[in-house]
Amino acid sequence: MERCRMVFSGSGGQGVITAAIILAEAAVLHEGLVAVQSQSYGPEARGGATRSDVIVADSAIRYPKVIQPNVLVCLTQQAYGKFYSMIRPGGLLVTDSRYVKLEKKVDARQVELPMHASVMERIGKGIVLNICMLGAVIGLTKLVKGESIMKVLEKQIPKQFLEMNRKALELGAELVKDIKVC
Amino acid sequence: MERCRMVFSGSGGQGVITAAIILAEAAVLHEGLVAVQSQSYGPEARGGATRSDVIVADSAIRYPKVIQPNVLVCLTQQAYGKFYSMIRPGGLLVTDSRYVKLEKKVDARQVELPMHASVMERIGKGIVLNICMLGAVIGLTKLVKGESIMKVLEKQIPKQFLEMNRKALELGAELVKDIKVC
Repeated sequence: MERCRMVFSGSGGQGVITAAIILAEAAVLHEGLVAVQSQSYGPEARGGATRSDVIVADSAIRYPKVIQPNVLVCLTQQAYGKFYSMIRPGGLLVTDSRYVKLEKKVDARQVELPMHASVMERIGKGIVLNICMLGAVIGLTKLVKGESIMKVLEKQIPKQFLEMNRKALELGAELVKDIKVC
Repeated sequence: MERCRMVFSGSGGQGVITAAIILAEAAVLHEGLVAVQSQSYGPEARGGATRSDVIVADSAIRYPKVIQPNVLVCLTQQAYGKFYSMIRPGGLLVTDSRYVKLEKKVDARQVELPMHASVMERIGKGIVLNICMLGAVIGLTKLVKGESIMKVLEKQIPKQFLEMNRKALELGAELVKDIKVC
């Protein structure tokens, strides 16, 4: 497999760190891959846009920080404004279509998805937006299976919330099912 | 300040990743420092001992992975067996006195603390063991103030759990109050 370097960005409380950790654990514990997940906080962290990095590969990862992501997800306009320029040429930029207005030219495939609107309409709980985002990311990249994500969630969250998370994951996959990345 | 490189280790579910993220956010958002927090998962992650790294500094951090921690916390025997040898000479090794039997010689100050036993006796909820551990770590290192940790928790957890977390943090500080590190 090609090494997949991802950055998930948004505002604090949208769960981008949690999403990155879940993805890393799914890859390592259930798909035999290796992963590094990190947060770097500098003075700019006090601004508002949060960023979380995850690298998934099938061989040792030497440098754990993402410089140029293959996949960049931006859930807010502020995160987009701050991070859009780091996308790897030929990469994939995923944005929330309600919260991000695309203003910049990038050498990457841009995918606008109504993640927040769909989560609110179909599930009614904004808290699973990050899981819907994960569903979209794995739907686009085929990086790990949805069931591997669910296995991680089954160990980490109370039973009564599992169904809601499963719906959010499937919703994300559904949003991208007709989108060809290559 | 000296750069502080820390590794928190234990078993999955003990919250060592959460503790590292809370510490990093407290340092950055409330103390004007910079921080990097990461998880590296290789094939050994499928074994059982979980590890989480955090570096806190007052100037840019170039390499985000911890090779030799100044502070190594081990909450289980398995984590201790796996990670004890990485401690930086002259560093600080903190273990849970019920769950870890010290068997190895290390060139570091060893501090055994009854964290789990005290949490169970005084609070009765094992889930805040990681916060007690954080209280002990910041009590020993003076890296960030307890109130900075509380500010992060106030934003992240439901109100009804705040008091329990505050107690756990204070309990950790109390366990180390007579321990001189230097």
